[in-house]
Amino acid sequence: MLTSTNPRTGETRPTGIAACTPDEADAVIRAADAAFAAASAHDRLWRADLLDALADALDANRDDLAAVADRETGLGLPRLTGEVGRSSFQFRMFAEALRDGGVLEATIDHAGTTPLGPQPEIRRMLVPLGTVAVFGSSNFPFAFSVAGGDTASALAAGNAVVLKAHSSHLETSRASHAVLRDAAAAYGAPDGLIGIVYGTEAGRVLVSNPHVQAVGFTGSLHGGRALMELIDARPRPIPFYGELSSLNPLVVTPAAAAARGDAIADGLYGSFTLGSGQFCTKPGVAFVPTGDAGDALVARIAARATDAAATVLLNGRIATSFDEIRDRLVADGAVELLARGAAGDAGFTAAPTVLVTSAAALTAEATEEAFGPLIVLVRYDDDAQVVRALDAVPDSLTATIHSEASEAAAVASLVRELSPRVGRLVFDGYPTGVRVSWGQHHGGPWPATNSQHTSVGVSAIRRFLRPLAWQDAPEALLPAELRDGYEGIPRRVDGVLQLG
Amino acid sequence: MLTSTNPRTGETRPTGIAACTPDEADAVIRAADAAFAAASAHDRLWRADLLDALADALDANRDDLAAVADRETGLGLPRLTGEVGRSSFQFRMFAEALRDGGVLEATIDHAGTTPLGPQPEIRRMLVPLGTVAVFGSSNFPFAFSVAGGDTASALAAGNAVVLKAHSSHLETSRASHAVLRDAAAAYGAPDGLIGIVYGTEAGRVLVSNPHVQAVGFTGSLHGGRALMELIDARPRPIPFYGELSSLNPLVVTPAAAAARGDAIADGLYGSFTLGSGQFCTKPGVAFVPTGDAGDALVARIAARATDAAATVLLNGRIATSFDEIRDRLVADGAVELLARGAAGDAGFTAAPTVLVTSAAALTAEATEEAFGPLIVLVRYDDDAQVVRALDAVPDSLTATIHSEASEAAAVASLVRELSPRVGRLVFDGYPTGVRVSWGQHHGGPWPATNSQHTSVGVSAIRRFLRPLAWQDAPEALLPAELRDGYEGIPRRVDGVLQLG
Repeated sequence: MLTSTNPRTGETRPTGIAACTPDEADAVIRAADAAFAAASAHDRLWRADLLDALADALDANRDDLAAVADRETGLGLPRLTGEVGRSSFQFRMFAEALRDGGVLEATIDHAGTTPLGPQPEIRRMLVPLGTVAVFGSSNFPFAFSVAGGDTASALAAGNAVVLKAHSSHLETSRASHAVLRDAAAAYGAPDGLIGIVYGTEAGRVLVSNPHVQAVGFTGSLHGGRALMELIDARPRPIPFYGELSSLNPLVVTPAAAAARGDAIADGLYGSFTLGSGQFCTKPGVAFVPTGDAGDALVARIAARATDAAATVLLNGRIATSFDEIRDRLVADGAVELLARGAAGDAGFTAAPTVLVTSAAALTAEATEEAFGPLIVLVRYDDDAQVVRALDAVPDSLTATIHSEASEAAAVASLVRELSPRVGRLVFDGYPTGVRVSWGQHHGGPWPATNSQHTSVGVSAIRRFLRPLAWQDAPEALLPAELRDGYEGIPRRVDGVLQLG
Repeated sequence: MLTSTNPRTGETRPTGIAACTPDEADAVIRAADAAFAAASAHDRLWRADLLDALADALDANRDDLAAVADRETGLGLPRLTGEVGRSSFQFRMFAEALRDGGVLEATIDHAGTTPLGPQPEIRRMLVPLGTVAVFGSSNFPFAFSVAGGDTASALAAGNAVVLKAHSSHLETSRASHAVLRDAAAAYGAPDGLIGIVYGTEAGRVLVSNPHVQAVGFTGSLHGGRALMELIDARPRPIPFYGELSSLNPLVVTPAAAAARGDAIADGLYGSFTLGSGQFCTKPGVAFVPTGDAGDALVARIAARATDAAATVLLNGRIATSFDEIRDRLVADGAVELLARGAAGDAGFTAAPTVLVTSAAALTAEATEEAFGPLIVLVRYDDDAQVVRALDAVPDSLTATIHSEASEAAAVASLVRELSPRVGRLVFDGYPTGVRVSWGQHHGGPWPATNSQHTSVGVSAIRRFLRPLAWQDAPEALLPAELRDGYEGIPRRVDGVLQLG
């Protein structure tokens, strides 16, 4: 039987959940496949209402879900109730996107003659894949787990979903799944449309199973690489969408440090310690100018860290890894330990930690991601040093610039350097706190995979759709959205976009 | 020095082209990267005009290009002049798409308060990747080679392109590249924006080079797999878009065989022998009902094959492989040799070949793709046999159904079976002849990679773009298309699609 551990105390309790055997996992996948086929009889408006029903159920169970998650994650009730709200908001936004219909990319080219001669009619639309596997993350027990954005976007696309519960919050996963499953059943969705499996072996079965058509994963680079190897070994590879780690460089310009160093120090401190620093958008490295203003900014961050209490981490593995990486960074001489908060006295904790080095000395060793409340401050003399030092920083989900209007030319140059390295550019703010919206992009170059898609925001749905073209199809065989008379969604007809 | 072979005669002549050394290939990539950076100063309308200039240059050199290609490929001048026209048409269509601007997916979410609290402004647009590698195919010396759709879509997206010339038509590749390069220079594009390399080793350098951001490839499953392994071994994997082979099942229903068996026999014969059967959309397996109408249809195809002259194949490797696979299919007893045309007497040729088997006996061995004028006719008694037999057919780019209106229910059921297996469904037509249009989808499940994108049609551009989000950016740092006042392109603003 699998157990659940309270990270605040380290105490472990039985969950009554058994790891799935390969046969059990296979049965869950088969049930999902059958449910996908049954659900395919419904249209996208049926799916939109389903998503709303799931959102309602999450909201109705918010406090109960948050309480279970608080015991398993130590993230605190305010954050966790907010995160359930973020999850239901995602379901509703995807429902709205389905009603809008633009996500289908409906396109009609009527038959006709082009410079290449007579041409057949072609109609194209995005269609679901089938059964999608979603691996829950450790750090977002709701918004990137069972009830998270991968689940919502895969369901919005019309797929069935099989979830792999994260070992760090099994009871939260079970409770979340029960809420979604029961709400789906009450709505009239086919049984098995939202399945769940437990245990590492079941996860391997998921990515290797021929009935699984795509994988969504939020977790470590190491874990993601292991899944990718299994996928590459399939006779028929499938898309793998992983968010695998990110260092999220942040640059403070000289004028910004001079104009509002204290505010930036406080904001940056808040950002890298938010959620105990367990965010894929945590700023893990910040470039701060040398000189008095930069010195003051650094000193203020260091003081805040020194005064800080230890914060709870999600589990023992993360705590051990955090300590190991911090110690390695310092022992290697890659960075200097500038400030560190109090040690914890129970459970799994980390002390907020500030390390410092110079841009001239920055190496790839100094930019190993430490998942937890740790930041490396990099002191620089001029922009050229920043640009050179960026080569030691892995590509990331985000990059942030704090600057003043007087520095427009230098900032434009910096933006050109940073753009190819990230998926989102943040100005005078902080990368933590990822807005769920139509335009959000939460992705980027490797180690985000696939670099062309997002795991947050409406276009996340695109990951779990594929194009299908119909050539000279009888109207009765076309999806309703592709028939000539259909109205109410954006369509591109003979090259001209129409709002519907 | 590399040589060029006339497949009609087998005669080889020197090209004066040397295989690139790794250093030479690296220099071409660096030049492309520098050109990408320089070209990034221009807007998308500049790129649209560039594409038109390239199209004009292809048209102006059509006859010369076709003559070189005819000597190297044996495909004949009518087909080859048409194919140059197809290439220029693609460039012009992508130019039109750039002017339309919808391909950018411009999205603006203004700052505001949502149920999740105050939210920052997010603006998102698709941006180019950098330098893209494109591997020319053997079978389309223009439309899927140096001047082909991958090149056009990568340039449309704003990337630089480095081409790997196919060994089977080196002089055509050199001539095509010279036309594009000179036209780009005359237009004022930076040197190196369209580069080319020669030789197998240079191809390996391309996919492994850290400056290359994506790969487009049209070729064999074997060749594609080899490139994918190199990409997987990169410290930083990149997208690989491969068209790797396809069997393209075609189903003739009993009523269709009865109503128009002769026409289908002629159409199918024309389709599987078109271009000597060297198309990724060649129907390689066709299901024909048992009974008199099916017998007559099969007999007519067989008669046409028996009467046919040998046709020229592209090169010796393809000819050898064709013979080996045909012999293996027959020797294994997987299929029976029904009819075969005359043998060739010079160069690299194949005899149009018709094999036959029963749906009940169809195995995966019988559905090995033979690149050339060969089809396996599969006789079936009822729809259930077809559905079972489809499990022996690899997923494909297309599937085709010939049916009559009286069979609507059975056809709908067949469409449900075929849809998950393909990227395009063709009704009462033939899969060869891929319309270049807004809605075309030329892709599908594995062995097409990536299954979510097309290599023909306007959305092919999407492969070589990635999203980038700007959070609270100063207006001056935004691309023009994302500024509030910009007009003339479709944009989604605060969730509402606007035509501009």
